[in-house]
Amino acid sequence: MPDQSHTPPSRATQPDLPVQPADVMAAAARLDGLAHRTPVLTSRTANERVGAKVFFKCENFQRVGAFKFRGAYNALSQFSPMEKERGVIAYSSGNHAQAIALSAQLLGMPATIVMPKNAPDVKLDATRGYGAEIVLYDPETTVREELAAEIADERDLTLIPSFDHPHVVAGQGTAGKELIDEVGELDTLVVCCGGGGLLSGCAMAADVLSPDCRIIGVEPDAGDDAARSLRTGTLQTVTNPDTIADGARTPSLGEVTFPLVLHYVDDIVTVSDEALIRAMRFLWERMKIVVEPTGALAAAALFEGIVDPSGGRVGAIISGGNVDLARAGRWFATT
Amino acid sequence: MPDQSHTPPSRATQPDLPVQPADVMAAAARLDGLAHRTPVLTSRTANERVGAKVFFKCENFQRVGAFKFRGAYNALSQFSPMEKERGVIAYSSGNHAQAIALSAQLLGMPATIVMPKNAPDVKLDATRGYGAEIVLYDPETTVREELAAEIADERDLTLIPSFDHPHVVAGQGTAGKELIDEVGELDTLVVCCGGGGLLSGCAMAADVLSPDCRIIGVEPDAGDDAARSLRTGTLQTVTNPDTIADGARTPSLGEVTFPLVLHYVDDIVTVSDEALIRAMRFLWERMKIVVEPTGALAAAALFEGIVDPSGGRVGAIISGGNVDLARAGRWFATT
Repeated sequence: MPDQSHTPPSRATQPDLPVQPADVMAAAARLDGLAHRTPVLTSRTANERVGAKVFFKCENFQRVGAFKFRGAYNALSQFSPMEKERGVIAYSSGNHAQAIALSAQLLGMPATIVMPKNAPDVKLDATRGYGAEIVLYDPETTVREELAAEIADERDLTLIPSFDHPHVVAGQGTAGKELIDEVGELDTLVVCCGGGGLLSGCAMAADVLSPDCRIIGVEPDAGDDAARSLRTGTLQTVTNPDTIADGARTPSLGEVTFPLVLHYVDDIVTVSDEALIRAMRFLWERMKIVVEPTGALAAAALFEGIVDPSGGRVGAIISGGNVDLARAGRWFATT
Repeated sequence: MPDQSHTPPSRATQPDLPVQPADVMAAAARLDGLAHRTPVLTSRTANERVGAKVFFKCENFQRVGAFKFRGAYNALSQFSPMEKERGVIAYSSGNHAQAIALSAQLLGMPATIVMPKNAPDVKLDATRGYGAEIVLYDPETTVREELAAEIADERDLTLIPSFDHPHVVAGQGTAGKELIDEVGELDTLVVCCGGGGLLSGCAMAADVLSPDCRIIGVEPDAGDDAARSLRTGTLQTVTNPDTIADGARTPSLGEVTFPLVLHYVDDIVTVSDEALIRAMRFLWERMKIVVEPTGALAAAALFEGIVDPSGGRVGAIISGGNVDLARAGRWFATT
């Protein structure tokens, strides 16, 4: 949809933005030796299909199985001694829960995670396994944001949201920094978009390390709020979008991420769930890596020709690999 | 079963054996730049579970998705100009078919592959995709070895079997060589065993590069012919073993591999299909890699405590990742 494409303003440093590229660089120093430097994979067949050289940055191999560890650790490692002693609270049914729990364990601070009572046992067990206290709630009757705020207030805990926080955004951007550090400048960088933390963080890394690189976000068709927000310049929302990309079911970009996306991102495109399953099949079957639906958004946009790969050097972030294997098998059986 | 364990004779070079460790080293030079140097992965959780530092050599990331490319290319690259002009023939329903087809394509020679008519389309298409001619047969009425010999004779083609050939064995051994080159000496090396090509090849590499390393083969319970052959010193067979480890359904070790296994291998153990699925689940879910059942044999023996990891540095070959995803999903749903 090039005719509707958004043209980002000049990328000169804008002090009114809530995060700066230098924050991503500082986060990389904090994460050094703690986050995995995840592998960058390539595939002849993928290159042929896309018509470009594609570098897949595989955050499914990150600690806790997703990029979320980067932002969580970057945020928690900047707590004051007092904040650290009292501890962190987070709410998440997904990868952010484990990312906060592991980061808190590594930093020796208590963690409280608010999770829906119907969360899969494997996620509850993994979060508990990192020593976090889990508070279960009934998603039918409770608004998790309110419950978390209440507990934070009572116990004097510091809340770290899953994307809308400057330190979280800066941490996520280190994935993009590592990719460009390893493979050199890119013509296009394609990143999945839920709340926009990974997307805007990686965009800032590219702004410094590969300034001519186009930045493209990818959402599921059903959850196209960020695409609409970018095109209209006004924050758009979506309610409970019906998509298998559970990491991109967020209702909207946030106060921190929206201005960053407006400033740094060239375009946001969307893909269908069927395209996601086709992309997952390729990644699993041909590249032998387990990728969750949200983690396949960028690859799907490239494989389906929705992103123009012109220029020839394309980065794609594979954001995570946490998925129920039996459920994935059913998707593969029927698509 | 340590009381029944086989004690290999002295590892001094035995000129009467059909392959020598030096052949593995020569194969490595031939494969340099053509085979992928596949990654060696480690996992904190796997180490904790096994009680040792485990190095997984990931041949699921090899070209055609399995180690078989190594042996096939090593064999075909030693054809005489006349043999090369006439071409190669192979029979296989599995990874050897694609390995021969790709190797022939790279070397610019014709390839004929005899495959069962009920082989999955994805395998037929992949083999054809490398430019091979496929001859289909009905496994109910035709013995594939006889059909292949007949065509080889008619067309003057050179037959390359899937394991029982000195050049194939030497090529497979380069996987073990690369592993030890990368991580250093090992106390134990665990390798899956079908026809014994990968096992004996890797054992020869270890004999040179890590002489004190124990070499353990792993078979499925139902296809324990190699374990029995090693213990009795007499070639044992098995008929159509009922196991999901399709790469280890071979009826017996071969004329080339049996003496090598007797000479170089310390023990061969077996694992159940249930253990294989548990190991696959760990490899897929925690390590985010797609591994076929045969490829998980070595890991399963370690995870289940069937191999003693004493010494603390253990290598395990992950031999391949070609598996029907929907079928794997059903295994994961029911185990």
